[in-house]
Amino acid sequence: MISFESDYNNGCHEAILKRLLETNNEPATGYGLDSYSLAAKEKIRQACSCLEADVFFLVGGTQTNATVIDAMLRGYQGVLAVETGHINVHESGAIEWGGHKVLTLPSHDGRMDPSELAQWLHDFYADPTYDHMVFPGMVYITFATEMGTIYTLEQLQAIREICNRYELPLFVDGARLGYGLMADGCDVTLQQLAGLCDVFYIGGTKCGAYCGEAVVFPRHNAPAHFFTIVKQHGALLAKGRLLGVQFEALMQDGLYFKLAGHAVAQAMRLRDAFVAKGYTMYSDSPTNQQFVLLDQAVIEVLEKNFVFEQWFPVGDKMNCRFVTSWATTVEDVDALIAAIP
Amino acid sequence: MISFESDYNNGCHEAILKRLLETNNEPATGYGLDSYSLAAKEKIRQACSCLEADVFFLVGGTQTNATVIDAMLRGYQGVLAVETGHINVHESGAIEWGGHKVLTLPSHDGRMDPSELAQWLHDFYADPTYDHMVFPGMVYITFATEMGTIYTLEQLQAIREICNRYELPLFVDGARLGYGLMADGCDVTLQQLAGLCDVFYIGGTKCGAYCGEAVVFPRHNAPAHFFTIVKQHGALLAKGRLLGVQFEALMQDGLYFKLAGHAVAQAMRLRDAFVAKGYTMYSDSPTNQQFVLLDQAVIEVLEKNFVFEQWFPVGDKMNCRFVTSWATTVEDVDALIAAIP
Amino acid sequence: MISFESDYNNGCHEAILKRLLETNNEPATGYGLDSYSLAAKEKIRQACSCLEADVFFLVGGTQTNATVIDAMLRGYQGVLAVETGHINVHESGAIEWGGHKVLTLPSHDGRMDPSELAQWLHDFYADPTYDHMVFPGMVYITFATEMGTIYTLEQLQAIREICNRYELPLFVDGARLGYGLMADGCDVTLQQLAGLCDVFYIGGTKCGAYCGEAVVFPRHNAPAHFFTIVKQHGALLAKGRLLGVQFEALMQDGLYFKLAGHAVAQAMRLRDAFVAKGYTMYSDSPTNQQFVLLDQAVIEVLEKNFVFEQWFPVGDKMNCRFVTSWATTVEDVDALIAAIP
Amino acid sequence: MISFESDYNNGCHEAILKRLLETNNEPATGYGLDSYSLAAKEKIRQACSCLEADVFFLVGGTQTNATVIDAMLRGYQGVLAVETGHINVHESGAIEWGGHKVLTLPSHDGRMDPSELAQWLHDFYADPTYDHMVFPGMVYITFATEMGTIYTLEQLQAIREICNRYELPLFVDGARLGYGLMADGCDVTLQQLAGLCDVFYIGGTKCGAYCGEAVVFPRHNAPAHFFTIVKQHGALLAKGRLLGVQFEALMQDGLYFKLAGHAVAQAMRLRDAFVAKGYTMYSDSPTNQQFVLLDQAVIEVLEKNFVFEQWFPVGDKMNCRFVTSWATTVEDVDALIAAIP
Repeated sequence: MISFESDYNNGCHEAILKRLLETNNEPATGYGLDSYSLAAKEKIRQACSCLEADVFFLVGGTQTNATVIDAMLRGYQGVLAVETGHINVHESGAIEWGGHKVLTLPSHDGRMDPSELAQWLHDFYADPTYDHMVFPGMVYITFATEMGTIYTLEQLQAIREICNRYELPLFVDGARLGYGLMADGCDVTLQQLAGLCDVFYIGGTKCGAYCGEAVVFPRHNAPAHFFTIVKQHGALLAKGRLLGVQFEALMQDGLYFKLAGHAVAQAMRLRDAFVAKGYTMYSDSPTNQQFVLLDQAVIEVLEKNFVFEQWFPVGDKMNCRFVTSWATTVEDVDALIAAIP
Repeated sequence: MISFESDYNNGCHEAILKRLLETNNEPATGYGLDSYSLAAKEKIRQACSCLEADVFFLVGGTQTNATVIDAMLRGYQGVLAVETGHINVHESGAIEWGGHKVLTLPSHDGRMDPSELAQWLHDFYADPTYDHMVFPGMVYITFATEMGTIYTLEQLQAIREICNRYELPLFVDGARLGYGLMADGCDVTLQQLAGLCDVFYIGGTKCGAYCGEAVVFPRHNAPAHFFTIVKQHGALLAKGRLLGVQFEALMQDGLYFKLAGHAVAQAMRLRDAFVAKGYTMYSDSPTNQQFVLLDQAVIEVLEKNFVFEQWFPVGDKMNCRFVTSWATTVEDVDALIAAIP
Repeated sequence: MISFESDYNNGCHEAILKRLLETNNEPATGYGLDSYSLAAKEKIRQACSCLEADVFFLVGGTQTNATVIDAMLRGYQGVLAVETGHINVHESGAIEWGGHKVLTLPSHDGRMDPSELAQWLHDFYADPTYDHMVFPGMVYITFATEMGTIYTLEQLQAIREICNRYELPLFVDGARLGYGLMADGCDVTLQQLAGLCDVFYIGGTKCGAYCGEAVVFPRHNAPAHFFTIVKQHGALLAKGRLLGVQFEALMQDGLYFKLAGHAVAQAMRLRDAFVAKGYTMYSDSPTNQQFVLLDQAVIEVLEKNFVFEQWFPVGDKMNCRFVTSWATTVEDVDALIAAIP
Repeated sequence: MISFESDYNNGCHEAILKRLLETNNEPATGYGLDSYSLAAKEKIRQACSCLEADVFFLVGGTQTNATVIDAMLRGYQGVLAVETGHINVHESGAIEWGGHKVLTLPSHDGRMDPSELAQWLHDFYADPTYDHMVFPGMVYITFATEMGTIYTLEQLQAIREICNRYELPLFVDGARLGYGLMADGCDVTLQQLAGLCDVFYIGGTKCGAYCGEAVVFPRHNAPAHFFTIVKQHGALLAKGRLLGVQFEALMQDGLYFKLAGHAVAQAMRLRDAFVAKGYTMYSDSPTNQQFVLLDQAVIEVLEKNFVFEQWFPVGDKMNCRFVTSWATTVEDVDALIAAIP
């Protein structure tokens, strides 16, 4: 069986594994104060061209979203996100458990529409009863989105401008940041992204690491005592070196982006093959997640040798998800392409 | 420099690293449903002689404490612990952040006294205003304790009996469980411990793994939807295999206990050496943490070649902590013993 | 100026005031254990024909909703409500502050559609990822709704049946219960309502009292230690007698229902007058809140002598709300009717 | 039976009742924006000589403590209080439910010792692991304390100075503020108190009102959107006029202080009588709560005609509490004095 089930099916990239081996017997102090973590943070600052950035390593995505959002909101504030946003659907209510409402906007293939955001904010403050409601305290977007789509630079700038107008921080969930930045046609650079948002993270778990998300506050703007907030949320790893070593390897010679670029290239091959054979894509994703409408007969054929997820029915077809990663080989994709009826 | 700073200074034991290497390229489903995790859980059930046990793998200790306590308490309940308990001191208020008061009892070298527990509970229900107060909802103890001490079987049975009387679950924080069970003079087995408590965990992070704590509900008594509660607390690892592989290795042929036993043996050598040279131990710890009172001159001598923590002053001396682990060699201890003035 | 601004514009009904005067100098024990509170609870049990009911007096609506919902949900559960539900809009996120997501369904003039509820629940459990999501833990409806509408007995029975199927408690927010039960055409009795839900409250604040909401668990089914939960939520009044005296007066000889009936009758007169003069009602409300579409010229005429709220524009008109209460006189309504252009 | 059970046994003072009657039929807008509330706030500002003060009316004490503390702390901060502080004992964990640890200091008859506070703060920041702990975020004291004692001006100034040094806000729980300021020998004025703290409240419930606590931020220093925070905590009364009218009456011609002064005077008579007859007072309280050690025979004699609380045994005697209030008559005290064996 060849798996296109998700981008967190395999262990970690061999370059990371190699460094874990090499460093294993070196003693290092705990809680992220080790030399590997410090070096990884510096590499991230340089990659972002944000030499003043505050960088923290957390373990997983839901944890990171909950910790960052709690740290940046006051109790009476909620977070604006699209309905399909990960924090609104698949985090078991971690944001609400922290006391905050997710204020939802329509999803456009996973994206927030800047004009709808502006309208929502206008309407909120135009409502004479707004101080009986949950105040918007932050804008949350994902890049790439849960639907595999990305934002253009212009769209991000438009959202930023609205955030400025309402003094709202912008938080970019980058669980799949690599795939977004290396997406087919992406016109946003890591440096630009860092310049446009108040906090974002470089997702490790889904982009080649065993675990780990690197939270970046680009302008030395971490909330006071964020270290303690991370600890309080159970997100501080005692052996922080496990995260430091991994991110140091990922940031070495642009490995992170090479891995993502490889996965995107394989996804594009797959997309082109489906389209060439006359299938309809559910969304026009330029990243490592491809959504295609298949009927039951085709699914049965492909399931014999390939693992993939059936998301939800669309008319009489099923929206199926195929995900590539650093671990997807050219041969894996060749085989799948050959098998498409 | 040779480090006695903590038991989480090194990477992971080589047997674990070997298995991480061997399994790295095998695809596996996420969120702890992989075959490694399933196999590790089964090994844990057998080691505990609790074939019906529910087992979950979480990442770190504070996270595990907060998740278990939240899952088992109702909103109006607090958790009984000694003042020096980890949840009361060094978890940045994670328990209170989850809404629960830590109700404190005196610490006896890290231990709870059963008769003081019984008295506290008696006094609580004797107070006519108790329904204006925080109800006790659980008893939390650590094994081994933060001070390196352990409970006797008789003490644990006494606490269990009180818990039965007041219908309180007993939670054993086993971040250092291996060192406790392998302690010099310990008369408690893993099977007995599992039989006496309602939930406990087998600490991986401090006992040879890179990360990971195995939560055990011995009698198929996990709270409903504990999986979702773990997710909500940001404690569910996407690549759950990282925890499964580690615990499978630790549970293979009793490795977990061998590593702990080695560390304890080295700690005993160290303790005996300090005592033989006329030093006073702060507590009579039979586990891998040794606390000894040193004056400044001695500290300066030892600091030249060894890393250790200075906890707090006692009279005109300093209470210093030396910690051994699976990674501490016989030669490390020889060197330290030779250096003691 | 004559006010149709809300049903909480005046003090309290004179019969209540009279009893406050008569009882003022009698000492009484605190926290709701006074004889007035006990007598009021008994009157409520009899009015509901639920002699086993647990009854608690809280101070206000948001507080009551938050306390009841927190007491009945586990941490991983949310509450199902329509989008316009008070808990979802006008309670400043009190439910999320308590850790729970409000899971929303479409609003039909303020009502939940039973078939949409059934579909939502079916879809939830059909989703293979549901244990990464917020579990439904309760159904919340308002009676009368925020839009002035009510449910038929058949609709309530349909919702109850769905709740039974999924083992969900049904909570009826009765901030305007009196107006609902006395509504034009209502076919539900207080006894039937009590029989159909797991918890509801008899709203005092908007129905003649100065403050106070009587929470009823009809079948002796209050959550354990609900008294303490109320205290923890800051909802326990030291001088509980203030609530007991008021509810005893409201329950005496059906005063509560007489006051509501009077308000509804005046609202019906108002509705008929608007309709007769050719105006369009925004919703077909049979209760004390009337919503009518007015253009700016008419608003300006009426604003000279009457207070009312402009809710939101509908096309080129404004949806205006006129609210009657026990304090609205026949003459007040005569005057308003006469003033309608 | 004559009651010395508590200071919240009766309804409200007649001057308040009179104003409730007079204003009952006047329509007024909701949520504390009515003219009575505005006038009461202005009277409070003048009484405090803080013309810039932000004033809010909440309903009860636990609610007020929880709301103020939540509003002023960040998630990683706790509140410093003495062990006997109301928030630490008798609020059912409302503070922890809001996510904050109560960090405790020893109680000296209910008072915090400034030097112990300074030492605690010194030790906290001297601990190298403090960023794994709960940060102190506020100092909470009660005036008068739960034991009936008060602080001298010098003590308050010393606490203020420490707060300044560590940039901690000082919160004074004034549930019994009147009795404190009118205490026998009190050298603190309302104006001085307002000048020394960052937030305090003027307790109504225990000082003559039916309910209500007036929260004062003396230097226009209320947290942003405190109104919404109050709403979110379920502490916003729809008919805010109920609180406004009561506080307007209490602030008229110094009624609040006259009532408290009367109660204190009666308490002093009672204290003197007990002492004259050779009884031992448990604490030297100069306020309306008197604690005296009685043996069982005396208790039985007094219980025939008087209501009072037995707090806890001290040696072979019982510490009994006698509380006076505005409603305690000279004759009540005469009768009790006459009855003391």
